Amino acid sequence: MTNPYNTDLDRNPANHQPLTPLTFLERAASVFPDHTAIVHGPLRRSYAEFYARSRRLASALTKNGIRRGDTVSVLLPNTPAMLECHYGVPMSGAVLHSINTRLDAAIIAFQLDHAMSKVVIVDREFMPLMQEALALATVKPVLIQYDDPEYDGAPTDFEAADYEVFLTRGNPDFAWLMPEDEWDAISINYTSGTTGDPKGVVSHHRGAYLLAQGNALTTSMQKHAVYLWTLPMFHCNGWCFPWTLSAIIGTHVCLRQVRAEPIWNALADEGVTHLCGAPIVMSLMISAPDGIKRDLDQPVQFFTAAAPPPEKLLADMRQAGFDVTHLYGLTETYGPAVVNDWHESWSALPSDEQARLKSRQGVRYLPLEQLDVLDPETMQPVPRDGTTIGEVMFRGNVVMKGYFRNPKATQEAFAGGWFHSGDLGVMHPDGYVQLKDRSKDIIISGGENISSIEVEEALYRHPAVAVVAVVAMPHEKWGETPCAFVELAPDQTADAEALRAWCREHLAPYKVPGKFVFTPIPRTSTGKIQKFVLREQARLS
Amino acid sequence: MTNPYNTDLDRNPANHQPLTPLTFLERAASVFPDHTAIVHGPLRRSYAEFYARSRRLASALTKNGIRRGDTVSVLLPNTPAMLECHYGVPMSGAVLHSINTRLDAAIIAFQLDHAMSKVVIVDREFMPLMQEALALATVKPVLIQYDDPEYDGAPTDFEAADYEVFLTRGNPDFAWLMPEDEWDAISINYTSGTTGDPKGVVSHHRGAYLLAQGNALTTSMQKHAVYLWTLPMFHCNGWCFPWTLSAIIGTHVCLRQVRAEPIWNALADEGVTHLCGAPIVMSLMISAPDGIKRDLDQPVQFFTAAAPPPEKLLADMRQAGFDVTHLYGLTETYGPAVVNDWHESWSALPSDEQARLKSRQGVRYLPLEQLDVLDPETMQPVPRDGTTIGEVMFRGNVVMKGYFRNPKATQEAFAGGWFHSGDLGVMHPDGYVQLKDRSKDIIISGGENISSIEVEEALYRHPAVAVVAVVAMPHEKWGETPCAFVELAPDQTADAEALRAWCREHLAPYKVPGKFVFTPIPRTSTGKIQKFVLREQARLS
Repeated sequence: MTNPYNTDLDRNPANHQPLTPLTFLERAASVFPDHTAIVHGPLRRSYAEFYARSRRLASALTKNGIRRGDTVSVLLPNTPAMLECHYGVPMSGAVLHSINTRLDAAIIAFQLDHAMSKVVIVDREFMPLMQEALALATVKPVLIQYDDPEYDGAPTDFEAADYEVFLTRGNPDFAWLMPEDEWDAISINYTSGTTGDPKGVVSHHRGAYLLAQGNALTTSMQKHAVYLWTLPMFHCNGWCFPWTLSAIIGTHVCLRQVRAEPIWNALADEGVTHLCGAPIVMSLMISAPDGIKRDLDQPVQFFTAAAPPPEKLLADMRQAGFDVTHLYGLTETYGPAVVNDWHESWSALPSDEQARLKSRQGVRYLPLEQLDVLDPETMQPVPRDGTTIGEVMFRGNVVMKGYFRNPKATQEAFAGGWFHSGDLGVMHPDGYVQLKDRSKDIIISGGENISSIEVEEALYRHPAVAVVAVVAMPHEKWGETPCAFVELAPDQTADAEALRAWCREHLAPYKVPGKFVFTPIPRTSTGKIQKFVLREQARLS
Repeated sequence: MTNPYNTDLDRNPANHQPLTPLTFLERAASVFPDHTAIVHGPLRRSYAEFYARSRRLASALTKNGIRRGDTVSVLLPNTPAMLECHYGVPMSGAVLHSINTRLDAAIIAFQLDHAMSKVVIVDREFMPLMQEALALATVKPVLIQYDDPEYDGAPTDFEAADYEVFLTRGNPDFAWLMPEDEWDAISINYTSGTTGDPKGVVSHHRGAYLLAQGNALTTSMQKHAVYLWTLPMFHCNGWCFPWTLSAIIGTHVCLRQVRAEPIWNALADEGVTHLCGAPIVMSLMISAPDGIKRDLDQPVQFFTAAAPPPEKLLADMRQAGFDVTHLYGLTETYGPAVVNDWHESWSALPSDEQARLKSRQGVRYLPLEQLDVLDPETMQPVPRDGTTIGEVMFRGNVVMKGYFRNPKATQEAFAGGWFHSGDLGVMHPDGYVQLKDRSKDIIISGGENISSIEVEEALYRHPAVAVVAVVAMPHEKWGETPCAFVELAPDQTADAEALRAWCREHLAPYKVPGKFVFTPIPRTSTGKIQKFVLREQARLS
């Protein structure tokens, strides 16, 4: 029996178009041409200007020989040019490759070669780094320098086209290229892979469209919201927020550097309603001197990821008028694909209980079809008991296309029809996922698994501990034992003995760290603690 | 040159799933099982119950032999069963066919036969009508009767399975069927076609997913919004709001009949935040006696379509605390695909100017890729001058699959790669579309086109006019001339002479109606004025 609803009812140009977030900007510029799209210091750009400049960029790239499937790399902080690249590059049919500005030249060179980069657009501040990378790389991309008016460093004398001059060569009415298929790549982002070569995560237009809308829906983001760029856009395309804001005709407030003073000023002066960042960004804001903190007229939503927000920080943020939502995801899931979807009734619980609930990563985003914790051997769900550890896995339309030019890694990541995150977690009885560790962060002591996060959580509850990271340390008898790296809170003191006693009170004996190291903890540019660095220190100590 | 981003990066079950709004309910029931999904009189159903009952329905239909591509017809008012059918029917792989409860038996019989209906689910109130239709129809569907606790009519003695008993045969944990492809049909809705046979508009899962999200995004609908069912769900699947509410974990407040008292009570007692309807629903609310109107604690959004909201009604609604947004669309576009997206600056204008701006249909919904006014001969856009009339056309992902078993009508509707709405309109310089008439409603007098809407707008500005409809009347000399049907406002008087004088002041002489008829104006169940009835009256008079 043929299905009668599949007869003479085919796709055609009137009823089927590729999903792409690029259409959001076209709509915003058409409907609200004069609304402020971008704020950057004293600079204000309307949606009409934002769209025209993005089309100029696409047109100029095309005139420069860029074709569908070419890679355009950018090394840019959170500036208007970075936003323009999120539209203008894919509008030329090219794939946007955003490079983390904190990487070293060798890794950048690897990425440029692997992505077969044809053009690189570089902020003046990072021109020396890019020159160093290009000297190591095989590819010879066209070099374009962006001269940010908010950057006051000394001029460089490198040979490069000027971004603004380049734009003037482009046509502001350029008939930009829709993707031929919504499965076409829109961007590539390299994971910082601590072992082996970085992997190039390829995202497609369909997923970017869906996650960009998912951000607005999941966070009930209103029309004309004002978003502050504390999250680096080079990190996973800023979780797709560069596209979300066009969907709701919002305003981007750019920020070159994440410092407390410009954050508080933007919150107060620009009427910021939303921002994202690791808990370290909240710490930075909360620990700012009173002279820098400002009174806010509007409620502010803060979306945090990377680590569970500690209880005290949550309380301080609430006190300061912020509503904090915990998100979780990976570059492979376009950014956040999991949300700690809050129940109103939880707000009446004691604050330690609220913090416990908020520390859980949560449930699937609307555009993610499935999220579960599976036993990676059997691919069966673990019991929903909040204690059995399994691997967090994803399936749905906001999971990457795969790893670029790496079919083996792609196949491994998708084995069994699920995306394997590499994160270990538990499933609570109410369907909320909680991370327990990265596979490689688990500590195996005398054959028992120790979750480094569990030990960290115990130490976070100690009033003197500001930041803590626990990794495996070699142990003659047990194989491994935990080693704790600690930053103390300002005006607080605690020594190893005090913390050890605290852990003995709150943890099983074999989970008590064998060593406490008091030291500043190394972090990535997105605020993630670099456990591989600590693991190396613990191994050598 | 092959595009390297298309190599070894194929779709697979981990990264590609069919888009379907059915997953919204699964998520809502999983994350907020106890949240109230449905209110119906004293009845309260949680999301867990809503989902379990929908799965029971899908399971019971499957046990009854329903397969992918079968049609399940329903003749139901806005009841919990109608909501369950919007999920349970497509969860069985079947296509939902909602029938307008105001149709006559002959048209219902035509629809049942044309859709090849296998099962019909009928509210007890409409069993006599369905029996009459089945007597005329060729198909012999399984008959199921829904006994709504809110219906107090006398029992019938027809032979039919009971809906609740039918559900008990289904499994609440049924592994419901995802669509095999997001292009699979989810529903069929017959247009009321005033000439020829009704056409069956086929909608697909992809479009329903996108428009359901588009409703929430376009209207900035918050998590846990409370929605009152004044719009019939049989009308174009209630503009996809049955699916939107699950996406934002909202609450449906059902309503068997659109009357002022239950509307005001629901607004006040259930904390309704959103409702939809034709301007007649607003009139009904505003003209209710003071004893029935209630004070509201919350702001309420009213989405209106079908006709431009008159100025006085807008002012009255604003006064009463409602925010009115004008939407526009057709069954072929899943309901609203155009929104009068409001600019904050417009709220400072005089109220007649605001009403003029609000009477425009507006701009494309986010999930509609293109909206334009084209010359149907040349398929070129008309000038953006607000006066040149063309045909309003749509293209994008929220345009129907086509007309069921009617390839000729489908091809005509999609000629030239656009969906031809049959509505005539103008494009304003700011990109907002304004309807001027249906093609068939235009009045041709002495070779000149007269927009019936223009004449109606002039009459609406007369203080004594409550409702007006203008149609063509035969004229010996000019071929046609306008004929105006008028309902006067309560406590107001005006005769034909007064209205004629008013029109002479405000319209070109050839546009002044040749006749004024003071009479109640016939409307469809969705509040649309039945111009074909009036045209017939004008022809015979």
